[in-house]
Amino acid sequence: MILRDPVHGLVELEADEEDIVAALLEAGELQRLRRIRQLGLASLAYPGADHTRFSHAIGAAFVMTRFIRRMRQVHDELPFWQRVTTERARDALAAALLHDVGHGPFSHLFEEAMPNGPRHETWTSRIILDPGTDVHRILSRYDSTLPGRVAELVHGRHELTFLARAVSGTFDVDRCDYLLRDAYFSGVGYGSFDLDWLLRSLRLGVAPADGGPPPLAIDGAKGLPAIESFILARLFMFQQVYFHKTCRASEWLMARILARVRELLVDGTRLPALPPAIATLARDGDAELGQYLALDDALLWTAIAEWQTATDAVLRDLCQRMVRRQLFKTVELYGSDAEPERRRELYERAREVAASAGLDPEIYVGLDCASDLPFDDSDGSLSVIFPTGAPRRPGDVSYLLGRLRGQRLSRVRLVFAEELREAVVRAVEG
Amino acid sequence: MILRDPVHGLVELEADEEDIVAALLEAGELQRLRRIRQLGLASLAYPGADHTRFSHAIGAAFVMTRFIRRMRQVHDELPFWQRVTTERARDALAAALLHDVGHGPFSHLFEEAMPNGPRHETWTSRIILDPGTDVHRILSRYDSTLPGRVAELVHGRHELTFLARAVSGTFDVDRCDYLLRDAYFSGVGYGSFDLDWLLRSLRLGVAPADGGPPPLAIDGAKGLPAIESFILARLFMFQQVYFHKTCRASEWLMARILARVRELLVDGTRLPALPPAIATLARDGDAELGQYLALDDALLWTAIAEWQTATDAVLRDLCQRMVRRQLFKTVELYGSDAEPERRRELYERAREVAASAGLDPEIYVGLDCASDLPFDDSDGSLSVIFPTGAPRRPGDVSYLLGRLRGQRLSRVRLVFAEELREAVVRAVEG
Amino acid sequence: MILRDPVHGLVELEADEEDIVAALLEAGELQRLRRIRQLGLASLAYPGADHTRFSHAIGAAFVMTRFIRRMRQVHDELPFWQRVTTERARDALAAALLHDVGHGPFSHLFEEAMPNGPRHETWTSRIILDPGTDVHRILSRYDSTLPGRVAELVHGRHELTFLARAVSGTFDVDRCDYLLRDAYFSGVGYGSFDLDWLLRSLRLGVAPADGGPPPLAIDGAKGLPAIESFILARLFMFQQVYFHKTCRASEWLMARILARVRELLVDGTRLPALPPAIATLARDGDAELGQYLALDDALLWTAIAEWQTATDAVLRDLCQRMVRRQLFKTVELYGSDAEPERRRELYERAREVAASAGLDPEIYVGLDCASDLPFDDSDGSLSVIFPTGAPRRPGDVSYLLGRLRGQRLSRVRLVFAEELREAVVRAVEG
Amino acid sequence: MILRDPVHGLVELEADEEDIVAALLEAGELQRLRRIRQLGLASLAYPGADHTRFSHAIGAAFVMTRFIRRMRQVHDELPFWQRVTTERARDALAAALLHDVGHGPFSHLFEEAMPNGPRHETWTSRIILDPGTDVHRILSRYDSTLPGRVAELVHGRHELTFLARAVSGTFDVDRCDYLLRDAYFSGVGYGSFDLDWLLRSLRLGVAPADGGPPPLAIDGAKGLPAIESFILARLFMFQQVYFHKTCRASEWLMARILARVRELLVDGTRLPALPPAIATLARDGDAELGQYLALDDALLWTAIAEWQTATDAVLRDLCQRMVRRQLFKTVELYGSDAEPERRRELYERAREVAASAGLDPEIYVGLDCASDLPFDDSDGSLSVIFPTGAPRRPGDVSYLLGRLRGQRLSRVRLVFAEELREAVVRAVEG
Repeated sequence: MILRDPVHGLVELEADEEDIVAALLEAGELQRLRRIRQLGLASLAYPGADHTRFSHAIGAAFVMTRFIRRMRQVHDELPFWQRVTTERARDALAAALLHDVGHGPFSHLFEEAMPNGPRHETWTSRIILDPGTDVHRILSRYDSTLPGRVAELVHGRHELTFLARAVSGTFDVDRCDYLLRDAYFSGVGYGSFDLDWLLRSLRLGVAPADGGPPPLAIDGAKGLPAIESFILARLFMFQQVYFHKTCRASEWLMARILARVRELLVDGTRLPALPPAIATLARDGDAELGQYLALDDALLWTAIAEWQTATDAVLRDLCQRMVRRQLFKTVELYGSDAEPERRRELYERAREVAASAGLDPEIYVGLDCASDLPFDDSDGSLSVIFPTGAPRRPGDVSYLLGRLRGQRLSRVRLVFAEELREAVVRAVEG
Repeated sequence: MILRDPVHGLVELEADEEDIVAALLEAGELQRLRRIRQLGLASLAYPGADHTRFSHAIGAAFVMTRFIRRMRQVHDELPFWQRVTTERARDALAAALLHDVGHGPFSHLFEEAMPNGPRHETWTSRIILDPGTDVHRILSRYDSTLPGRVAELVHGRHELTFLARAVSGTFDVDRCDYLLRDAYFSGVGYGSFDLDWLLRSLRLGVAPADGGPPPLAIDGAKGLPAIESFILARLFMFQQVYFHKTCRASEWLMARILARVRELLVDGTRLPALPPAIATLARDGDAELGQYLALDDALLWTAIAEWQTATDAVLRDLCQRMVRRQLFKTVELYGSDAEPERRRELYERAREVAASAGLDPEIYVGLDCASDLPFDDSDGSLSVIFPTGAPRRPGDVSYLLGRLRGQRLSRVRLVFAEELREAVVRAVEG
Repeated sequence: MILRDPVHGLVELEADEEDIVAALLEAGELQRLRRIRQLGLASLAYPGADHTRFSHAIGAAFVMTRFIRRMRQVHDELPFWQRVTTERARDALAAALLHDVGHGPFSHLFEEAMPNGPRHETWTSRIILDPGTDVHRILSRYDSTLPGRVAELVHGRHELTFLARAVSGTFDVDRCDYLLRDAYFSGVGYGSFDLDWLLRSLRLGVAPADGGPPPLAIDGAKGLPAIESFILARLFMFQQVYFHKTCRASEWLMARILARVRELLVDGTRLPALPPAIATLARDGDAELGQYLALDDALLWTAIAEWQTATDAVLRDLCQRMVRRQLFKTVELYGSDAEPERRRELYERAREVAASAGLDPEIYVGLDCASDLPFDDSDGSLSVIFPTGAPRRPGDVSYLLGRLRGQRLSRVRLVFAEELREAVVRAVEG
Repeated sequence: MILRDPVHGLVELEADEEDIVAALLEAGELQRLRRIRQLGLASLAYPGADHTRFSHAIGAAFVMTRFIRRMRQVHDELPFWQRVTTERARDALAAALLHDVGHGPFSHLFEEAMPNGPRHETWTSRIILDPGTDVHRILSRYDSTLPGRVAELVHGRHELTFLARAVSGTFDVDRCDYLLRDAYFSGVGYGSFDLDWLLRSLRLGVAPADGGPPPLAIDGAKGLPAIESFILARLFMFQQVYFHKTCRASEWLMARILARVRELLVDGTRLPALPPAIATLARDGDAELGQYLALDDALLWTAIAEWQTATDAVLRDLCQRMVRRQLFKTVELYGSDAEPERRRELYERAREVAASAGLDPEIYVGLDCASDLPFDDSDGSLSVIFPTGAPRRPGDVSYLLGRLRGQRLSRVRLVFAEELREAVVRAVEG
């Protein structure tokens, strides 16, 4: 299989061990990812960011082929039973391709808005393990134990820790692809980093005393700038895209819509164009796999378009705002205003504003706290290897990482309906 | 308004005359373009090509701001009544933004598949001129005659011919944006050209004897390579993307689905999840504007997903193939095989293969002829201006254009269901 | 004037006020910059980095045109006597173009190696102010006081502080161009930042109480990421290029060559192919302007090639190493090894190694301490302006800048002749 | 060896067979290429184009590693004695690196200006075969017959024709690198093509009946666009850079300088700062290898700077023009004016203009005819292979190549001293 990807260029998957990628792409469960946007509603802020989970899945698999090639360059000193065999490579490729196959509409957004349902990791496992899926059938053609092995690996469990970390770890293939991809499609150049050099900078660390396989490590002679730029690319993407005020505000709105749907369903209200999976998820906290797989952005979007004429006034209003992009607005809180007690107080003031305006504060006002830890090496799992001397922690030898480690990034905002803006700003400043 | 576009970088629309863009983006009819992919089904061949008409509309408006800036650099010698005033600039920006607002789901594909309905240009005019639309309301806020002027300009009619050509012409802002955008998102680098230099290469030609405004022309000292590369970028995009076998085959399949729906509706069959606009378009050859505007990729895709369980076996089969990407295959005909008589003969053979296999040849076999004229200057409307001497035609001074002008590009292919491949190839070669 | 620059694309300098750039490019003193590499010897480490000061000078002038355009977008609230008039724009363009016209061969390297001579800033002033130069003659054609004004502005002195800072300040046009240019030609992608957005993020701050012009400031709503990425690009370029071990080691070697030449000249030794300016600089600590201007990379390189057969054994040896790229090697000192006392001790050990090997420790061993302060806002001169509230310091509102401010970057290395490597490493580790 | 190249990114040369590259880079003859600009005087037109033959040599070797990898992907069907062994790969890498090691100052320009001397191919052979060179010594360390084999391969002679064509052929590694490199450094984006896809499109053709190795061929299913874009990139580079009027005019000037030097030397005039190799080349039509290797851009440039004060008035004048970039001007002849008889006539008129102005027409006026054949497949050596059917010529299946094959590109210009411009233009038009 060979195809053209704007992020990685020519994606060649033609070695024997790589044919599993083409085989799995025939599965309906993977084709479904064509209809699920990678970044949920981010295209409301960045009009180019309409890329799908399908292209990301292929991208992650392609990065895995490159990771495997790198590991094979550096694992000569390992005993043969710790090397990346053809079979292990195939497992890893399948895991990379399938790592997020369980995502619902608009990706992370759906599970956050349906907190009582299974998380996407659970759906991923079900898709891999359920004998009724195309994915399971295809994996089983290779080997009846393959679905089980892939399901383990997807969750970061494998006897070779360095391979497990490539599926789920600081520099895993998922992150490597999505940072580059999200940066490319949103047009935020800051999210780019040098993947060639990052891969080239990976090596194996010091094997544990018990004879187990060595962990991933960084080649200190050349590698520090590569991981510095990776950590910074991720930080910039959080600041610029994932925590962007318009993204957060539209996610808030979508979550309110789904919450309202849940409430109405629990109350026994009937909704037109309701996808069955949403009905059962709302009612039972779970759904049949087949129904869940029928869910995609198109189906949810069609339902929301329909609900613009729902009988419930709140649902109607929220869906009209969503379809016409009349999003909620935000005010960011800095410094002492962002401290827990004070932000609570400002949030209360904003709620009062909504109540005075006749809008339900539970729905029309929110306190949104986004937070991430850009870099940490305190668990000691990541080390930098130099030609001489003991391994060191990245933060001990990198000017930049030394200053970032353990430092949390937080963005705190009030979110509210646009018509409340003036009053909320006044209330906050007053 | 300022936003980030991966194709043009920082899109700044902050001059007074540019505020019409931000105003129009509030219109529901423009927000709808977020749900219509620019390239229809091309992402089935190029997984990155999921970009929407919404980002293209903004891109076209942005290129128009640059075109206007260029015209203002070179129109000093014109009488003041032939210059680009603020009002004319506003008209042109609105026309650029709205030029394709009437497209149906999957863009060109929809109107090709519903040949008895109005074309997208007609829908565009209706959206601009119908007093009930947001677009009309917003345009009228500026000036009650603005909707009429914009509708004319969208179709390339304006007293300033050079401005009319910027909306609809060889180097119009639509093409300038879509070539760059389609290349960026599909990852086909060949579609790129140097927009900076193209704009810089435009100048005004020799005014006609009647005192009318001068036509657009090319600055010969620097400009030839810019237009050569534009023409080639377009040629490459046709060869690589718009005429790609997978794109053409998936368009064929989608057209068969919609044709089957039409037939069934005409026969009085009832279909679930049928968008009202499709019902009336199929029946009456037209639809109400409001119904038409409810149509988008999501709605059509949801309907197709639903029709996977339709009672009509053919519709069911076609929709299942579409959802699971089991596309039709193609065989390209070269040289004498592509001549009209011979290709007809080969097409008949392929039809017989289908019939023998129990498949309806009208649906499961097609003869697909894609054709374009990459460059022509025989109408004399485009001239190259040199410091001395008379204007010349591009093909007379460009090595490359001289060899391409009037030369038609054609790709002829048989299209057929995958299971017929072996037999069709045998029949064609035999 | 219009030309193609790989860094900025189409460089258009066609406004009236911009014609001074084309005029000055005719000056022999500017054409000389074609023969002076921007990064000295960095192409010994990065084979693409052969770009010259000439292209950088044009780039800096081009960035200045963009800076001026930005200032004119935001200075509407200023009284007319504080605006960027055509004359002030011309001054600023000349200053940007000429800011480094006084550099000697291999740029910074030459003045570091000839510490008793005038610095490049002095040479720049002389070139602008000396009535015998082309530059002076061309400037004077516009206005007899122009040379004086430009000389002041080159050194960051101007009544409009925001304009002065564009010539010499945190985000000056020199830095803006050289970071992008050095990154492009060395191939170190990390040095890139988003110039469009940086310019767009600049605005005017709060004017001082005395009615003077306002300082440059950052537009907080959009601007923080732009300056964060600028600061990081600069940091990466220091780490990756300017402080690269091979660059530093080759600069060390070149400095030793010039120091040896000085010594020999002072001792009365005669050297073949000796550029007169070097003779007088070594002897008198100064040179005639005409002689200085005859110095360029070609002349110095030709002399070094000649000195490969000098009678002085040390000079001969050093020049042979340089021509054949047999550079000195380095060992980096980290952590406590880099502390002043300890590094002194290690340096002494390395010197002993050289002495034992019969090599002069003054020449064949060095202690190289490179140091930079990536970000500081403690002087309060740079502020971030928000829609509401008081101006804030960048480090108070930026996660990243808050963690970098005032933090010094240092790289400490022993430098030594290659043949000493093993013994030096042993001595350092022992 | 690993290094950063702005054109190819991370250049990794770490396989056993690749160590010959690092070994050869130690040779003084290769280090000399750091001081020879790849594009001669092109930086007078494109200020970024200061890249050297050194970076190109590494780039060509790197492309060769990729070519070899591709050949090994597709040569499974060959008998083992026709495969790319480690030894053959090493030969090919050395040939790629050394293919132009014999170039003189300013590359092609020097040999054109010294037409009675050996051509650069001859110097390349001498460098490889002369036992006194570093290159010879290093090659011989591997195998005493290696210098001979490499010298053959550099000139396109090898038992494996497909390997020979990679060193010297339509898509050889030299062209692949220089097109990308010259485009990158000049900033002319049009010169880019998709190297990944070009390599991927290469395959082996039909082996000859005598059992010899198969020729290189193009994989028709995917390959046509890759070679189309390569041919066009080359065409654009010729039009935009290699045949640029400023480049041609400055080459004319340099050639006049060297011709004048030859004349003066033949007449027995003594010149200061004369490089010995130029003296013997002018006098004897040849030079000692050691003297020739001392020639580089720096030495020639230093001589020209010195000759600005030569006693011969013409040489003095020409050198002053060159140093201060007071280049000759051009008028391009189109259509019938470019026909041989007519252009001769116009040239005569221009010569008369010079004579009237007291300038020697032999020196101050020229007729410059640049010409190239962008594509030809008439010798049948290049074929396109399809899944079924016989191989075809590229021009028979490619719309674009079919229209370009055998079509010659010509640019005809009068070249003359700037002060003659007005009079020459008048004479030509009159």
